[in-house]
Amino acid sequence: MNTGLAGHVALHPYLKQGQIDVDQMLDAYLPKEDKEPLFYEAIRYSLFAGGKRLRPSLCLATTEAVGGKRDAVLPFACALELVHTYSLVHDDLPAMDNDALRRGKPTSHKVYGEGTAILVGDALLTAAFTLIAQKSLQTASNHKAVLEAIFELGSAAGLDGMVWGQFMDMQSEGKKTMNEQGLESIHKHKTGALIRASVRIGGIIGQATPTQLTNLTAYGEQVGLAFQIVDDILDIMGDEKELGKKIAQDQLKEKWTYPRLVGLKKAQEDANRLSALAINALDSFGVSADPLRWIAAYAVNRKN
Amino acid sequence: MNTGLAGHVALHPYLKQGQIDVDQMLDAYLPKEDKEPLFYEAIRYSLFAGGKRLRPSLCLATTEAVGGKRDAVLPFACALELVHTYSLVHDDLPAMDNDALRRGKPTSHKVYGEGTAILVGDALLTAAFTLIAQKSLQTASNHKAVLEAIFELGSAAGLDGMVWGQFMDMQSEGKKTMNEQGLESIHKHKTGALIRASVRIGGIIGQATPTQLTNLTAYGEQVGLAFQIVDDILDIMGDEKELGKKIAQDQLKEKWTYPRLVGLKKAQEDANRLSALAINALDSFGVSADPLRWIAAYAVNRKN
Repeated sequence: MNTGLAGHVALHPYLKQGQIDVDQMLDAYLPKEDKEPLFYEAIRYSLFAGGKRLRPSLCLATTEAVGGKRDAVLPFACALELVHTYSLVHDDLPAMDNDALRRGKPTSHKVYGEGTAILVGDALLTAAFTLIAQKSLQTASNHKAVLEAIFELGSAAGLDGMVWGQFMDMQSEGKKTMNEQGLESIHKHKTGALIRASVRIGGIIGQATPTQLTNLTAYGEQVGLAFQIVDDILDIMGDEKELGKKIAQDQLKEKWTYPRLVGLKKAQEDANRLSALAINALDSFGVSADPLRWIAAYAVNRKN
Repeated sequence: MNTGLAGHVALHPYLKQGQIDVDQMLDAYLPKEDKEPLFYEAIRYSLFAGGKRLRPSLCLATTEAVGGKRDAVLPFACALELVHTYSLVHDDLPAMDNDALRRGKPTSHKVYGEGTAILVGDALLTAAFTLIAQKSLQTASNHKAVLEAIFELGSAAGLDGMVWGQFMDMQSEGKKTMNEQGLESIHKHKTGALIRASVRIGGIIGQATPTQLTNLTAYGEQVGLAFQIVDDILDIMGDEKELGKKIAQDQLKEKWTYPRLVGLKKAQEDANRLSALAINALDSFGVSADPLRWIAAYAVNRKN
């Protein structure tokens, strides 16, 4: 078990391998040349923009932590990234967060227009479920577990999860007051739900025991919240070049964030505390869960 | 077997029963009161706006035509309507078709704003897959068939189906030329794919034989194209009150339509021919397929 600096440094090759595997499957799933090159180009523009593939890595790492097969969970890892990318493309739209820059590049609607950006998001979201069904029919034997994992993904992404979080986030802009509970609820839904689902899906497909799944869920919830707090901190303290987007956007849009609510110092302390709690939740796991421990450390030490 | 006027008149109770069953499941799935009433209200506003529930009826009728269980396919019937409604909400957006009226009511973005309308569509699309997974885990025994049907739904809705059709439709606006093949391709993707999938999913869940599925697919393709041609005709000849939307919108937006390409008379003849072909494709089916025959007749005789 290794949770120190060496572990943190060792994270990169592990994340890199996840990125390679996921990108390879996504690349094959979305042909470069087709009847309508322009639309595929627009889809690939956002999907292959250099994302960290954090959610896929969490999903793959969880399956491996419980001794499951990487091949069986790979379609879900890809689906998580498709869902995550769709949410970024739609959130960046003028009618939502109105962002011009993402991962150092102009956002989808800036390049292809709003109508196409909406359709790109729709296509990515639909592709997530289609890819899971297609690949699982080809490879998976446990179709019931696949349906359970689809249910996890849909619940986390939809109107009780991410979409609701984005709606509440929009509603809260410009509001005069906010308490910690309210902000935590927005974060838990907007980013936390999909990160939690990444871990739970990895567990379900890896055939985790109920106790393992409970511990993994706790890990996922704490990592998700820590990750979002650090996102808020980076919007204040981050380097625009490393982040690939403009900072101070939350303040500009009068968004409620952890640092705004509790101060920068306590926000960083909370993130560190959550990261440590996440690692504690893995106490009953052996070295197979080390990549999950590294990711928890990375979540609060990252620069982008 | 009854394909005459009596059959056509008898359609309405059949469609009505499908509408009742589907609406009941959707109503239970989307609670009226929840942590965020406004968002659920926006979702229900579009979903319960008095749609004909054509796709659910096709799906239910197909399962019953092959002797399958209505209960097992009902979640898919609901999912098809969720997908259809999401596509209407997004297509109506200012960045897409920019429509102000739908089913006699102001469109979602006119009532709730563009940001919320985008999220409503996202939530409906996600709910389609989530509902299938949830209900099928509770009731269905054949999880492999459920995954096959999810694949059908996703393929028909996504970047090789409906989303691509909408993209091509947007691209074709204002174009100087168009041939019948190009227009048919847009129609086949934009509306045809989901109607075809409604029938195929009904067949798959109803455990149709391969030969039955081939015939049902032919039926679905022909009904889908006939349905779209009549949509184009109603945009010229229809009654705004009965339609619940403004007519002559295609002309205003310089959209390519069947009547524009081949004239009104040939367009109506083509629709009638396709409806007859669809009914012919059901030759090997007995009376259990009568509702499908009625729907094929209704597709070309409807007023809205």
